[in-house]
Amino acid sequence: MKRKSVIAMLMATTLLAGIFTGCQAKTSETPVEGTQTETPAVIADTKETETVKVTADVEETKTPKYVFLFIGDGMSYPQFQAASDYLGALADDDDIVSGGENLSFMNFDVAGTATTFDSTSFCPDSASTATSISTGYKTHSGVINMDETKTVAYETISEKLKEQKDYKIGIISSVNLNHATPAAFYAHQASRNSYYDIGVEMVESGFDYFAGGGLKQETGENEDQTSLYTLAEEAGYKVLKTQEEAEALTAEDGKAIIIGETLADSDSLSYDNDRADEEWALADYVEKGIEVLDNETGFFLMTEGGKIDWACHANDAGSTVADTLALADAVQVAVDFAKEHAEETLILVTGDHETGGLTIGYAGTDYDTFLTNLENQQISYAKYDSDYVAGYIENQTSFEDAMKDVEKLFGLVTPENAANAADETLVLNDYEMGLLREAYEVTLAGGLGEEPAQADYVKYGTYEPFSVTVTHLLNNKSGINFASYAHTGLPVAVFAEGVGAETFDGYYDNTDIYNKMADLLGVE
Amino acid sequence: MKRKSVIAMLMATTLLAGIFTGCQAKTSETPVEGTQTETPAVIADTKETETVKVTADVEETKTPKYVFLFIGDGMSYPQFQAASDYLGALADDDDIVSGGENLSFMNFDVAGTATTFDSTSFCPDSASTATSISTGYKTHSGVINMDETKTVAYETISEKLKEQKDYKIGIISSVNLNHATPAAFYAHQASRNSYYDIGVEMVESGFDYFAGGGLKQETGENEDQTSLYTLAEEAGYKVLKTQEEAEALTAEDGKAIIIGETLADSDSLSYDNDRADEEWALADYVEKGIEVLDNETGFFLMTEGGKIDWACHANDAGSTVADTLALADAVQVAVDFAKEHAEETLILVTGDHETGGLTIGYAGTDYDTFLTNLENQQISYAKYDSDYVAGYIENQTSFEDAMKDVEKLFGLVTPENAANAADETLVLNDYEMGLLREAYEVTLAGGLGEEPAQADYVKYGTYEPFSVTVTHLLNNKSGINFASYAHTGLPVAVFAEGVGAETFDGYYDNTDIYNKMADLLGVE
Repeated sequence: MKRKSVIAMLMATTLLAGIFTGCQAKTSETPVEGTQTETPAVIADTKETETVKVTADVEETKTPKYVFLFIGDGMSYPQFQAASDYLGALADDDDIVSGGENLSFMNFDVAGTATTFDSTSFCPDSASTATSISTGYKTHSGVINMDETKTVAYETISEKLKEQKDYKIGIISSVNLNHATPAAFYAHQASRNSYYDIGVEMVESGFDYFAGGGLKQETGENEDQTSLYTLAEEAGYKVLKTQEEAEALTAEDGKAIIIGETLADSDSLSYDNDRADEEWALADYVEKGIEVLDNETGFFLMTEGGKIDWACHANDAGSTVADTLALADAVQVAVDFAKEHAEETLILVTGDHETGGLTIGYAGTDYDTFLTNLENQQISYAKYDSDYVAGYIENQTSFEDAMKDVEKLFGLVTPENAANAADETLVLNDYEMGLLREAYEVTLAGGLGEEPAQADYVKYGTYEPFSVTVTHLLNNKSGINFASYAHTGLPVAVFAEGVGAETFDGYYDNTDIYNKMADLLGVE
Repeated sequence: MKRKSVIAMLMATTLLAGIFTGCQAKTSETPVEGTQTETPAVIADTKETETVKVTADVEETKTPKYVFLFIGDGMSYPQFQAASDYLGALADDDDIVSGGENLSFMNFDVAGTATTFDSTSFCPDSASTATSISTGYKTHSGVINMDETKTVAYETISEKLKEQKDYKIGIISSVNLNHATPAAFYAHQASRNSYYDIGVEMVESGFDYFAGGGLKQETGENEDQTSLYTLAEEAGYKVLKTQEEAEALTAEDGKAIIIGETLADSDSLSYDNDRADEEWALADYVEKGIEVLDNETGFFLMTEGGKIDWACHANDAGSTVADTLALADAVQVAVDFAKEHAEETLILVTGDHETGGLTIGYAGTDYDTFLTNLENQQISYAKYDSDYVAGYIENQTSFEDAMKDVEKLFGLVTPENAANAADETLVLNDYEMGLLREAYEVTLAGGLGEEPAQADYVKYGTYEPFSVTVTHLLNNKSGINFASYAHTGLPVAVFAEGVGAETFDGYYDNTDIYNKMADLLGVE
């Protein structure tokens, strides 16, 4: 603990010095030099016909005034293509497959690709990858905006935009607002687990709008520090914890932190397939963000779809698809805004890394997929765990009774109830029933313990054996498979639309997402 | 059989009519209209700095005169990123991961992405996907350049270039020259399995250069027809079956078909990790292709890395990486050629679909990879099957003796020989030894039979249980996993460099690969 504080102090000093120097250097320079000379040519001619139309009357390329950065945590090609194919499968009404339905961002003119390795691994984590996107530097897994020695802090794109360009800054996440990805836009910590210190940096950031899941370790790891929410209020933030208050928030209210009224697993926002109709979706937080951030100078709004990653870790394809679609809806809000500000807006949509090794295809279904089967999933694995499986364990519920819930909530049907199946492929065979019975026994007996054997770990990861077997089976019966419970090395897509979007074409490293943003925005 | 012939005749008539009409219509039009007016702006300004340098002195964009299309069968992001990361891991000499080493085509300025579904499935096959790339049409799995009703034939980009522009045409494949992907550039068949009919169309194509694996069903399905090689010679082709003859081939020799002297599984060329030093690599076939095709009018050379797909089907990561690197070497030959013809060459590198659901990451290795472990693999699964496992079955070799070969050829070491392991992660634990013993018993007993149970199919697919367990374990111990033995729905990358490359940016369908090529090349 002691050591952590020393590092934090060292780092805070470095950071402040960095910002200060940065500011001084900046003010004496032409703000957007380089961008103004280089980008006009790029904009005017690179896009395909329909885009040329949109930008043809722009005399001179501007620095984007409104910048949206959407990060699907754990989202790479498999996640959005699976969601797209799922919609396509639902829409197909004959025997000829006619492809996926493009999600909002899949219609963007520009689609580049970024590699994601970090200094520790080809399977990086969200702290290091968000650091790369936010600062242009590689670092070790688990580190937020500091170098590999954990002594030098890096200034982030959002801090630079606030300091150097006076942009308003907003940060939205469907997981905790001091979780790794949102933290990487305002904090500088040797460990992503220093939630309280990250929360303090959030409060001190002076950013204008935070919205999402509740702060972890609100009163510190030992619950003995001043509440982060109290610190926030002392720093001039309105802290809003009901949807009614959030709805009433206006730009005149000043700096604000919205915490979702309905919090789910680990105080995150609900998985989209668990969300009540009246409960705000990710898109609503973006809409409110635009409302309060819109100003004459400009704004930068980072929105994380954080539960795509959580769903993929748990190998829950239904929730992965639902939360990917929720992110696409949130992007659509920015697209609609951009229609009114076509010559001033840049929208970027990317992922930080892939999670789970999701595959559209499975050894057991060969060349077929049955994606519409996912429609039968009514609930996330996490809500199933808390609202059902916890009860099974407490009451030592019979396997037969548990399977009634499985039928209702996931559409998987036991052989004797085959007549109830929405599709014949959803009827469980003896092999599958065996897997479920085996997992159920382990679950009722209290799980795998601290050090699961390799064979068990491969089967269940660290998840509730019964729940993860249920989602595995529904995935597989839909023609979907996962290869891991962790992150993988697949590169991520970078979709871009609007002012300067063209610079995001190509195959590059995730540090170049920062470099390209910084070039376009004229920050150093 | 009868029905097939009727369809083939119907189709041949349609095709000939199509070509004829196409020709007539073409000659009365300005050849490259549209391309000449639209592309100059695109070329001159869209590329990033280093490319602008290369093309800045081009006064007017030309139709590419030299067109290279490389197709990695089964190659999408996971395959080339894994190969890239493998090279990076080999090069890393400290504890800080510094990323992959770009394969030749990963350095291209343009990297788009194409969706791959066909009319049958989101997990399409090589016949339908190559049809889309070659003609711009979707069709059912298994169909080569015909519509979903199997009555209308589509003319291919290569046929059009020959007919309408008098380009010379070359087709190279590391698998059989009448296999689905190469066939999709010259044949039109309701079934990809009509190998003899496809071979006849190959001979009748009049294309200038064919090189690769041996023709399947050389004398027909019932071995009662004239040899395809005889037909080829009658049609004026030189048929060369030794490397010495191939090396001696010159442009003056006219139309030629080179069949690899050393043929491996199913008469394909060797996996690159089985290839003898003196044996031609895929790159050598490309080099010879350029030599014989180069002419004043132009050429189109399609090169398929077909065994990437075969290796992924078999879940053999080592051979997948080796053949992906071999494709990258072949691309490098085109890159070197393009240096001498910068303003006239277009190079495209794509895949037809992903195979195997390859993931850089595995549940058992969590956030780690150990990619350098793949270096221990000395042999492809296929050569291991033919040169070793066949003998184990015949001689009922002991498991212990078989494991000596496994150590030598794959680097996997039994616990008692732990001291021999190149890396401690290569020592097999009890769980893994159990999997090997179980698989070995099934292999010695003659395999799984015609209708394997689901649990066995998921474990072994239709492969030799022992061999596929060996590669699965080496994959997993390297931090790699496969999700399927079939194709998956992941989109593929489209790398492009040279004249008109910019049009290949973005996220689009694989039919647009054809559309973009046709627009650029001015064919209809």
